[in-house]
Amino acid sequence: MSSTAWMTQAAARPDEHYAGAARARQMQLTKPPGSLGRLEEAAIHLATLQGCERPSLERIAVTVFAADHGVAAEGVSAFPQAVTVEMIKNFSRGGAAISVLSRSLGAHLEVVDTGAVREVGALPGVVVQRAGCGTTNFCTEAAMSHEQLAIALDAGRQAIMRAIAKGAQLFIGGEMGIANTTAASALACAYLTRQPVELSGPGTGLDAAGVHHKAEVIGRALALHRDHFNDPCEILRRLGGFEIAALAGAYIAAAQARLPVLVDGFITSTAALAAIRINPSIIPWLMLSHASAEPGHRLVVEALGMRPLLDLGMRLGEGSGAAATVPLLRLACDLHNGMATFAEAGVSEGNA
Amino acid sequence: MSSTAWMTQAAARPDEHYAGAARARQMQLTKPPGSLGRLEEAAIHLATLQGCERPSLERIAVTVFAADHGVAAEGVSAFPQAVTVEMIKNFSRGGAAISVLSRSLGAHLEVVDTGAVREVGALPGVVVQRAGCGTTNFCTEAAMSHEQLAIALDAGRQAIMRAIAKGAQLFIGGEMGIANTTAASALACAYLTRQPVELSGPGTGLDAAGVHHKAEVIGRALALHRDHFNDPCEILRRLGGFEIAALAGAYIAAAQARLPVLVDGFITSTAALAAIRINPSIIPWLMLSHASAEPGHRLVVEALGMRPLLDLGMRLGEGSGAAATVPLLRLACDLHNGMATFAEAGVSEGNA
Repeated sequence: MSSTAWMTQAAARPDEHYAGAARARQMQLTKPPGSLGRLEEAAIHLATLQGCERPSLERIAVTVFAADHGVAAEGVSAFPQAVTVEMIKNFSRGGAAISVLSRSLGAHLEVVDTGAVREVGALPGVVVQRAGCGTTNFCTEAAMSHEQLAIALDAGRQAIMRAIAKGAQLFIGGEMGIANTTAASALACAYLTRQPVELSGPGTGLDAAGVHHKAEVIGRALALHRDHFNDPCEILRRLGGFEIAALAGAYIAAAQARLPVLVDGFITSTAALAAIRINPSIIPWLMLSHASAEPGHRLVVEALGMRPLLDLGMRLGEGSGAAATVPLLRLACDLHNGMATFAEAGVSEGNA
Repeated sequence: MSSTAWMTQAAARPDEHYAGAARARQMQLTKPPGSLGRLEEAAIHLATLQGCERPSLERIAVTVFAADHGVAAEGVSAFPQAVTVEMIKNFSRGGAAISVLSRSLGAHLEVVDTGAVREVGALPGVVVQRAGCGTTNFCTEAAMSHEQLAIALDAGRQAIMRAIAKGAQLFIGGEMGIANTTAASALACAYLTRQPVELSGPGTGLDAAGVHHKAEVIGRALALHRDHFNDPCEILRRLGGFEIAALAGAYIAAAQARLPVLVDGFITSTAALAAIRINPSIIPWLMLSHASAEPGHRLVVEALGMRPLLDLGMRLGEGSGAAATVPLLRLACDLHNGMATFAEAGVSEGNA
């Protein structure tokens, strides 16, 4: 079936010439140098990744990867497993948070069913590329077979090919899958050599007892699979989910195609962590959008070595935190491109 | 001349009925309760202030008040005083940060010359309502006369009357004035009974020696005027600036007219502090947009008892931080109004 050899092909380095040019322009705009803070950094970063002097974010591709998780059988979510399929329908009908956000941003939204417990049939805006009817419970065996992993990774790569065909200037990956914070926490424990209690959180709304139980479930899974933690791809296969693997595949394929990526919250950051462990060359192409309220996110963010722009206590997933960050990046571009320079405006420069 | 009696007329309390209705709606939307974090809070807050179930922010009024400061003679800014007038022209021609941001947001921008050192003449988008040719150096006497204070406060009130006539749903006040962080720091010291070193920062870009000098200048001013610190209006007259007084007047007039206000950064927060010391009934109508990089802002924010939404290291003023926050508030409204409920979408609810 699908090979995964493409996953390790190196991504190009962004062209630092454009970073210098953008930085020089920022110094000439009619404001004290640095006074737009991270909006200046964002404009310089986007100019560098887009390889141009005037960055723009008109065309944005949002892909939500959905899947189910065998570990849901351990009672690790506040919501029933049926919600994954129900939410795929809600995405398709435009009622979910990411549907609303995508409309507001004029972004193109698609959903990829990478393997919910049951097939939803043909729905507008839903691509079907299923690796199975949910993963296997990773407390008993590997979450997916090698072939399933390859299908899931490839689902991500194909989403990027569609995004590029549409001329996307930025890629946002989202996820939906009941119990997927459990999978993400298990992955993060394996990649970061951390204890389950450090990375387990309420997800969609567990109470303290629920979080304790979730950490115990993750602990069992780590004990079962720990002999394989020296291989980042094998960690992903054993503890991941189809949607998480698809995100990792998408991030790698995006970077290989020089398409900047805006990472969302806890689960997508864990997918990004998997992706950079598999292929470190992709790091420069990833930007982090927001700090999730899911407590484990902090450690994953630290490991990614990136600073989120927003911290709004969001913990929904679906790509919602990344979508909420887009208007700021657009304003950063507008300011970079549209402000007058000191010379153009006849404004005196400071001695700062 | 102008009376200031209007300043102390109580603002109405927002209607808590709408808070309850908005909160109930948020609980029914297809997401784990609370998972949109501060975007949920923002939608509930706006619904409450706008007195409706579905808040919206289509029409936004941005007014930048500009003025000069006698204390500039003490060498407290990294930029020459000529920049105030130059920037008024830059605002008018559309080249300043707030010009670009207002265009991007579709917000109505006007500039009010409340007293630059010299008159700029008729310019598009610039309202002239001058209280003088800059304030007096408050190291030697009160920054403004009683009559000048009344004119400046009234300039703010009239800006609100124009905003309301245009159907504004949100008011953003900005400021421009070389040396106005010195005035704001002096005001904050007086209102908060703090030392100059606690509230003096680099402003447009002073180095450590410059900040030290600025604190010393503020210390002299505080020593001169400290017998009058029991009267919040008198503090404003002695240590403020025309644009800061105009902002305070605007905030009070907006609250009295039930027009929600989005406060910007350090200087506008200090104006808000002056306004609520003069008229505490206005507090519910003020929202704080961002945490400024100007170090004194933290103490002023603490005193206002509000949490900023953004923390992007911005320190430009002009209303730029508030403008950058608008897209998030708009997305909060879109999500609140546009998401499907569990019942509408046929999505199972959780046990959270």
